[in-house]
Order: sequence, then C-alpha cells, then structure tokens
Amino acid sequence: MFDIIFQIENGEPVTVSANQGDNLLEIARSSNVAIDAPCSGNGSCGKCRVKLLEGELDSPQTAHISKEDYDAGWRLSCASRVTGNATVLVPDIALAYQQRMKTADLSTGEEVAIFEALQAQIRDAGITFSNEFATVDVQLEEPTLDDTMPDNERLERELIKKTGAARCEISLPAMRNLATALRSSAFHIRVTGERRGDSFLVYAVSPAADQTPTCAIAVDIGTTTVSAVLTDLETGALLSKASAGNGQIRYGADVINRIVEQGKTGGRERLQKAILDETLLPLIRLLCKTAGAAPDHVVRMCIASNTTMNHLLLAVDADPVRREPYIPSFFHYDDLRAADLSLPIHPWARVHLAPNVGSYVGGDITAGTFASLIWNKEEFSLFIDLGTNGEIVFGNGEFLMCCACSAGPAFEGGDISCGMRATDGAIEAVSIDKETMEPALTVVGSQKPVGLCGSGIIDVIAELYRTSILGANGKFIREGRRIARDKHGMGRYILAFAPESETGREIAITEVDIESFIRAKGAIFSAIDTMLSSLEFDTDMIEHVYVAGGIGSGINMKNAVRIGMFPDVELEKFSYIGNSSLSGAYAMALSDDARRKVTEIAGSMTYMELSTHPGYMDRFVAACFLPHTDAGRFPTSIQE
Amino acid sequence: MFDIIFQIENGEPVTVSANQGDNLLEIARSSNVAIDAPCSGNGSCGKCRVKLLEGELDSPQTAHISKEDYDAGWRLSCASRVTGNATVLVPDIALAYQQRMKTADLSTGEEVAIFEALQAQIRDAGITFSNEFATVDVQLEEPTLDDTMPDNERLERELIKKTGAARCEISLPAMRNLATALRSSAFHIRVTGERRGDSFLVYAVSPAADQTPTCAIAVDIGTTTVSAVLTDLETGALLSKASAGNGQIRYGADVINRIVEQGKTGGRERLQKAILDETLLPLIRLLCKTAGAAPDHVVRMCIASNTTMNHLLLAVDADPVRREPYIPSFFHYDDLRAADLSLPIHPWARVHLAPNVGSYVGGDITAGTFASLIWNKEEFSLFIDLGTNGEIVFGNGEFLMCCACSAGPAFEGGDISCGMRATDGAIEAVSIDKETMEPALTVVGSQKPVGLCGSGIIDVIAELYRTSILGANGKFIREGRRIARDKHGMGRYILAFAPESETGREIAITEVDIESFIRAKGAIFSAIDTMLSSLEFDTDMIEHVYVAGGIGSGINMKNAVRIGMFPDVELEKFSYIGNSSLSGAYAMALSDDARRKVTEIAGSMTYMELSTHPGYMDRFVAACFLPHTDAGRFPTSIQE
Repeated sequence: MFDIIFQIENGEPVTVSANQGDNLLEIARSSNVAIDAPCSGNGSCGKCRVKLLEGELDSPQTAHISKEDYDAGWRLSCASRVTGNATVLVPDIALAYQQRMKTADLSTGEEVAIFEALQAQIRDAGITFSNEFATVDVQLEEPTLDDTMPDNERLERELIKKTGAARCEISLPAMRNLATALRSSAFHIRVTGERRGDSFLVYAVSPAADQTPTCAIAVDIGTTTVSAVLTDLETGALLSKASAGNGQIRYGADVINRIVEQGKTGGRERLQKAILDETLLPLIRLLCKTAGAAPDHVVRMCIASNTTMNHLLLAVDADPVRREPYIPSFFHYDDLRAADLSLPIHPWARVHLAPNVGSYVGGDITAGTFASLIWNKEEFSLFIDLGTNGEIVFGNGEFLMCCACSAGPAFEGGDISCGMRATDGAIEAVSIDKETMEPALTVVGSQKPVGLCGSGIIDVIAELYRTSILGANGKFIREGRRIARDKHGMGRYILAFAPESETGREIAITEVDIESFIRAKGAIFSAIDTMLSSLEFDTDMIEHVYVAGGIGSGINMKNAVRIGMFPDVELEKFSYIGNSSLSGAYAMALSDDARRKVTEIAGSMTYMELSTHPGYMDRFVAACFLPHTDAGRFPTSIQE
Repeated sequence: MFDIIFQIENGEPVTVSANQGDNLLEIARSSNVAIDAPCSGNGSCGKCRVKLLEGELDSPQTAHISKEDYDAGWRLSCASRVTGNATVLVPDIALAYQQRMKTADLSTGEEVAIFEALQAQIRDAGITFSNEFATVDVQLEEPTLDDTMPDNERLERELIKKTGAARCEISLPAMRNLATALRSSAFHIRVTGERRGDSFLVYAVSPAADQTPTCAIAVDIGTTTVSAVLTDLETGALLSKASAGNGQIRYGADVINRIVEQGKTGGRERLQKAILDETLLPLIRLLCKTAGAAPDHVVRMCIASNTTMNHLLLAVDADPVRREPYIPSFFHYDDLRAADLSLPIHPWARVHLAPNVGSYVGGDITAGTFASLIWNKEEFSLFIDLGTNGEIVFGNGEFLMCCACSAGPAFEGGDISCGMRATDGAIEAVSIDKETMEPALTVVGSQKPVGLCGSGIIDVIAELYRTSILGANGKFIREGRRIARDKHGMGRYILAFAPESETGREIAITEVDIESFIRAKGAIFSAIDTMLSSLEFDTDMIEHVYVAGGIGSGINMKNAVRIGMFPDVELEKFSYIGNSSLSGAYAMALSDDARRKVTEIAGSMTYMELSTHPGYMDRFVAACFLPHTDAGRFPTSIQE
C-alpha cells in the first residue's frame, strides 16, 4: 500500500491508501476528491490534469500534455497509475463543478422580478395560479369522559364540515404531532392540507398561532447543472434560489456515457446517489435554510429534467433510451411521494415530473415549452434549448413539433481545449480587430481569463470568420502573432498568451476545437432545418425564436446566426429566455392549471426522431461549414 | 474512564468504557447488553441482578438481595454505580427476552393445522377468504421505430384491458424493473398487483416464468411478545412463523411505564426504534428468510396491537392515552405504506392496523374478537385476553361490550419473585399433596426448574388454597418443611429447595407474590363482574368462555375458577384459543372481507371505562380474596 496525497488547491489535503497499479482518477473519486472528467476517464477530454509534486506515477505524456507541461509535472489523472507514494496538486480548475453549490442573491430584487414577470406572463396566457393547498383554522371541542372520540376523528369531522370534502386523510407526520398540537393550544389548531379529489389530506397540524408558510420546490435537473427555487404556495413568492453541478458529471458529461455507466453492476444506485444524495438533498436543505423554511411544510416538488435524467433520478433502467427503437420506461409518471426518493421535505409530498415526449425530448422541454408560451400564439415560433443536448420545438397554438440533437458539451465549454463553464474567469464575449487580429475580451468576474465559455466560443468563431482569419472550412487562412501551429501543422488562435492568463497557461482555440464546435452548431442548425423542411416551412415564416438554456444570457444572437447556428431571421425576433425548464417547473409547482397544461402540451407534441430521419445526415454535413455549404442561406454572415 | 466487562453467561464478553458514577444498567443497555428491567430501572422489580466477579461497584444491598447473595457478589444493576474497573456476570435469566428470537417448526404440521382449522372456522362464519391481489400474465407487443410508446403506457394499456380497471398505477420498484423484465423475456411478463377501487396497482413485474409467491405478513405486537406469520396471499398457506420479545421491554414491562418513557426527550424515537428496528425488522427478515420468500413480494401487512403499542409503533404521542379522559390520537388509521415505517417489505405495501375501540382496548382485541367468532353466535360468550393487560369482551351477534383492566405482568411471571415467562425451566403446572404438603411440578423442557410462569402460579395458589395451606386472605395457615418465614414473619412456600433448582437458588412463592397475584386475578374477575352486572347478566347466562393470550395453553381452567379468577361456570364452557390477535391479523391479511368485518366489529363494540366506573373499585376489593369475599359465587372452590 502506498500513500497518495491530494493537495487540493483551495482546500484541505486528502490522503488515500492505494495499491500498485491503481488508477489515480478512480482513487481520487473514491475518496471524494471530485476531479472533473467529462469524458468519464477515457483520456479524451484532458480535463483531469493534476501536477505531480513529489514521488512517482506511471503516466504517459498524452496529446493533452505538452512536453514542457509534462516536464513540469502535469499528468492526466485518468491515465496515471500508482507505483509508489506520491503527492499531487489538484488545481481548482480540475475540480468538478458539482463540488460548488451557490445560492442566488435575492436581495437585489432582480431574481424576484424575473419570477414575478414570468408569473404575470403566464397569467396573461390564461393560466390560473391556484392550487388545492389550504391552511384551515380549526377549533375543536375538548374531549371529556362522555365524549371520548379520538383526536383524528374529531379533527376529520370538523375538516369535512369546513372543507366540504367527503373524506379526510391525515399524513403520518401530522398524526404524530396531533395530540401535542391540540393539547398545547386548547384544541385550537392550524391545519395545512390539500384537497385531492373528494378527499382532504392533512400534511401538518400546529397551534393556531403558527404562521409557517406552506412551500413548494421547483427543480431543473440538467445534465450539467441543477437549479432550484423554493416558493410560497399561497403567494407564489420566490423565497430562495440555488444551483449546483449535477453530481453525476463524474460518470460522464453527456447522457450516453451515464446510461452506459448505470448499466454496470450497481450503476443505477451510483447514478441515483450522485444526483440524489450528493446534489439534490444538499440543494434542498440549502434552499430551506436560506429561506428559513420548515422542510416538513414543503409539500410539493416539481421536477423538469430530460428523459435520461428523470430515469436516473428514479433509478429506473435507462438503457433502452440509447438503443433503437429508443424506448424509455415512462413519459408520464406522477405517482411518487417525496419519501420514495428520501427527499428531505414532507415525506407525503407529491413529486411531479414534467412529462417526457421522447427518449431525447424530456420534461425539461415540455416544461420549457410551457414557459416559452409558444403554445399560446398564432404566429409560428421556434424554441431552442441549448444544453448538453439541443432540443428544438416549432409550432404555435395549433401544433407543436419537436426533436433533439446531440450537440455535445461544447456549448458548456466541454470538448474544447480551453473550454470552461460560464463562471469566474470565463471569456464570455470576444471581438477581433480585422487589421491587427488582436482580440478584445470580456471576462466573467472582470478578472484575468481562465478559459472560454459557450458564448465566448460563438463570438470568437464568428469574429475569426468575419475577419477572414478563418475559412469556411474552419481552418486558419491568415498568419500572424496570434496564430500558432503545432508540429503537425494544426493551427490555433491565441486569445491570451501565458502571462496574460490567470493560470499562466496560454488560452487558445484550436482547429480541432473549431471543428468540434462546428459539428455542434451544425447539429443544431440541421435539426431546425430538417424539422422545418419536413413541415414544408420556410425560415421567413418564423415569427419568434426563443433561446433557452445554460449557454447564458451573454449569447450574441447576431454572431450565432453568422456562424450558421441559428437560421438567418431578423435579430429582433430572437429572445433569450433563460432557464425555461426551471420557469416551467416553478409554474407547475404553484399552479394545478399549469400542470394540466404541461401535460396537455406534452400530449400534443409530435416527436421527430432525427437519428433515423432520412436526409438529416446530409443536412448535418451541409451545415458543418461556416456558415453553411449554401452560404446564401445566411446573408447576414459576411467575411470582411 | 474505567473498563466494565460484562460476562454474558451464554455469550461473548462485552467491554465498555464508563465514567465514575455511571449507572450499570444504563451502560449495559447502551452497549446492547439487554439486561431485563421490567420496572424500567427504578429498583422495584429486582430482575436485573448481576454478580460482581472482580473489581468494585457502588451498590447498596436492597430488599431484592439477601445478605448471603450480597456477600456472594449479587447486585441490582439498576442500583449500581461505577467506581472503578469491574467484571460482572450477566446470568442468562437476567437477559431480556427480546434478545431471543425464534421460528416455529412448521415441519410437524401442527402449526399449519391450527391456521388451516382457523381459516375453515372463519369461512364457516361466512367470511370469504379472497382479496384484490392478482398475478397477471401479460404478453406485450415489442416496440418499433413506428410504435414508440414507452414501456409503462404499453403495460398499462394491456392491464386495463385484462383487469377491467379504469386506471393503472405502477409502483416505483416495479417501474425500476420494468425495462429489464420486458427485454429479458421477449415482452412476456408476470405482473403482481392489486385492484384498488377502479385502479390496478402494479407491485412487481418479472419474466413470465417467474413463480415467486405474493405474500402478506400478519403481526401481533404484544406488550411483552411479538408474534408474526408469513402467508401466501393466493393460497392462504402458512409459510413461516416466528416470535420475539418486544424490544421496548427495557423501557418498562407495562404500557404506562412506556408511555411515561416516550414522553421524555427523544422518547418517541427510542420507543419506536425498540419495536421497529430492534424487533419487527429482524423478525420480518427472519420470516422471509425461513420461508425463502422475496421481501419485495410481501405486499400487505396487518398488525394487531393494543392502543399504546400501535401509537408507539408509529411514534404518535401516546401521552393522552394515560391521562383522563384517556383519548388516543386514533382508533382507526389505515393510510400507511410500509415505507412510512421503513419496513423491509415492498415499500408501497399497505399496512393495516386493526382498529382500536378505546385507550385500553386496542386492535389486538378487535382482531382477537373477530377470531373468537363470538360475533357470529346467538348465545352469549365471554372473551378474555390475558396479557400484561386483561381485556374482556362479552356479547353475541347482537351486541358486544368490552373493557380492560390493568392486571399487571403477573400472568407473565412479572411482579413475582421467582416469576418467569413460559420458556424452558418454567414450572407450568403444580399439584400439592394435602397430607405431606409436597409439590409435584411440571417443568417446561422437562429440566430442573428455574422459576414459575403464569399457569404455574395459578396452579400453586389454587393447590395451596385447596389443601388449606393458604387462607382466603392469601396468608399461610399451616406450617411444615415447605413453609418458611423471613425475619419480618413473611411466609413463603418452597417449590424447590436450592439444590433442586437449575440456578442453585430456592424457588418459592411468597405471601407478597400471592398478594400481588390475587390483585391481578381480582382485577380480571371484578372487570367481568362489573361488566356483566352493568348489563344485568348473571354468570349462568354465559354459554362460552374463550380464553386467549400469552398465559399459554398450559392454563388449568378449573384452578383458575377455584382461585376466583374466572366466573364459576361449567368447565366444558371454557376454551383456550391461543393467540387470537395473531389469528385475527392473519385473517385480515388474507381476506378483505375479514378486514371489513373487524372494522365493523370495532365500530359496534361498546367500550366501558372501568377506571371511572362507579362500583368497580368495591367489586375489585371484594375479589381480592380466595376465591372471593362472597365464596358462594364459587361453589367449585373447596378447601380440603
């Protein structure tokens, strides 16, 4: 046995015992050092770089490690094996996103305003914000030796009278508290409950003076990021908001890798644990703590997530999702209680999953489509959700068609050598001077740059193309001090020289990155293209384009059109609508009407399976140029 | 810190670190050495005797320890405090009953015959043994790219067709297994489910060839003993039977002590843990293991228990049960799932509690009354359940009246100096020669005697009275070698001299024991007497007397009448019907009709609160003689 010491850049060192030949990434993970490995440890992403400070490792130099870096001690942890004692530095950037969890600052009113505006818009679309939850003030007669009715019957009789329900059901937590609540308040209590059909379900009882609000939680479980809000069921007020990385990320950045992983022995339990125990439970606790809310008064939870994510959350076998004919276990599954998932809220709280419509169009999209309100318009709208997968919905009040394409993690900075998520240090916007070829960078957190996030990648490619530094095929066609090439001739554009960056390492976009990104944007555009043409719709019939998802509000629509990612329609038709999945889940949590509507939308959506659609592959290949092999379709896109 | 070593007589030694002044009983308990202390450690029962082998303890000599025993090292653990290192012997007899768990031997057919006979009798009374559980063989069409309906909808559509249900609900465990079951068997599966109203609930899915039986568990949770059976829901066959001591016993032998304990901080959780985690969970696992049954195919559980026991099981505050006007939180509470109690069976299994009718007449009695079948007769019957409490039901098909009296633990050997439960070494029957005053003993397990169980106590008192060794007031009136007296003049009858017993200690019944037992039998008789006279019924109108409960089949009815415990009716009217609570729970588990009937019986029973009934106290005092102050009521009882 050898001692491996992980020196966490901003944390405490972790010492692990390891055997000869153990894989470094695996022993890190097993000791809860969550080193980021979007490729699931197959050596392809190069994100798991650590620095050997002392001792030895059996670790080859790979394409991801330059000679200089290798000599300085940098190693890919997934490619390293234990051969003796060793101390390795784990830089902050190598640590998985899920080890960071943050609450939104509601004090500025900005976040609150977003949700208030959303509620107003949804109301304008005719959706009533009401639900069947109620708090009831009840004064019971005290029992005597001549009136020995047990507490529950006494309460039920009164509640039936007060609510008009035919039956009354008392949840176990309420039953546990009933005797004490009654006897500490002269039988004058406050009952928190819900009308369900002809029955009234009691969640909680407390002395009449109690004012604890009744709450709901809405969650968007993204492949990469999980976001959630806690809201007051009576007023709809936003009480807290928080987000975290999806703990499953260590099993792969995309859904396919995770489905493969869950198919291994104990895999379903591991994947469920990662999203549930490691992500959702602390996130819910954080939401409650931040808002000062009582977990046993959180009585509803609505979850928007893609089909794979909701299968993995429930530990339902997701394997058929990835195999032709791509059949999930469920689209709609609404029979769950919080206790089924051991969620730290009221154990009898109903958990609603936004319904899926296909293996690759899930509840995140049905909830998001609801929040986009395109179902309430006469004009035809396009709704594009950019995440690890790209999903596209097109239609209006009369019909809705949807499809999904595997864009890969490029929009979130994955698969890109200097890519990163849109956090501090990310280059989020770029402009390039045609003359000097020098870039002007906008960096999140106004610091020295660390890497390049999705919106920055769109910008840099659009600008490189506009300034004729890059050809339509994604290869560099000009030379200069910002253009460098490796020994194989592969070019890169240097956004920041080593001394200019936060990490002291050069930040560049390579031809391989660009090729990778062009495939991603090509997948999005060809999906839109295929769907529209199958409907015999022209681009100019699109009245609105709603862009949602993790790519962030920094996205430059003009540049996205210029690189041929979105169809070339008037810029004013584009709107970025943020996290529409979370917005939809929030509405579902508060409004029974919204929940019915989401189900209706899901039922009315026609799912188009692109992977087997004739013609999709040709369109995809045609879209893998800047802006497109048929440049005439992108008049806005010019090369200067 | 000192080291305390517990030498367990038949087990491994346990070493515990303890501080100066720590209570020996408490440190034993905290290290899972379950020393029996029916009095909850207040020094009154004298059961927690241990022997100091080495080292020191601060421990006074109490009334429970003779001078000789004290000198030999015997101490009451509840009265001992740590003052240094010590080694103590924990004799087997001091170990709590709950550390012993045993399965019944079904191979002899005896137990099976009992349950088959019971089922036949209940059927004869017009109760149908049928339930809404079903296994359904389902062949689904395999999905294709043109038929992409998800698995659950595909199954639901077919089940609705096959079962005629309007809706179908799939439990989470079944949903988890659905994709695999379908794809490993060419979409030909076996579905285990239950019709609930217009819905069909799927518990489990498996390949069509699977033969796992669908099971139910019935449990009787007694204050002292927990008994349970596992049964096949389709055939009603008894698959396994087991029993264990109720783990709560260390918090007190009777319900009142336990209610007091649950009222302390964390008490409800402690009491729940004792019955649930320490008793019920291992018992259920044992039942499944013995029968080779699959826990996830156990889809119903029926529990018969007294009002306090079912409140403590659910961790519902039981405090009002012991305070005038004696109001429990519930009589009927049927909304539970197995997951609510973390029971190791199918998490969605419905848990049914036999309904209570009063604070001291609980589900054990309603289930027992059902099993006694007295509700199906024209003649008037008396049903007596002898446990830690005594409960009495009187009536017929037209009416049922019930009451409870606190008999204390005497029938189970508690409160009696040489008392023990009816296990190996217990003297279960006694006869005494009038001339020589010598006893003839029948001992369980045909070994040397250890102590005296309930039926033995009845016998010895009846025989002592018959042979005029004992007066009507419970004092010895003859002298001889079997009669001894202590320095205060308190007499005892020696059943076994020290060398004749298993433990090497004398086994005797003292005047204090007899007084204690006379109060217990007086409580039973006066309860019967009060109830009958309030109904203006005479003893001779009783057609049947059904005796049930833990006192065991060894009870000599003639002797029980002779001491004035039961009314003096013809001996052939008496029947011992065993554990009627378990029998009732078994019927409830198998038959929806039985469950409805038990609820109907509970609703029709009139509960009489004896503690506040005028005249009860006078009748009790009158019954505290042998056989009674009005000996004319017991013509059978003679003194020779």
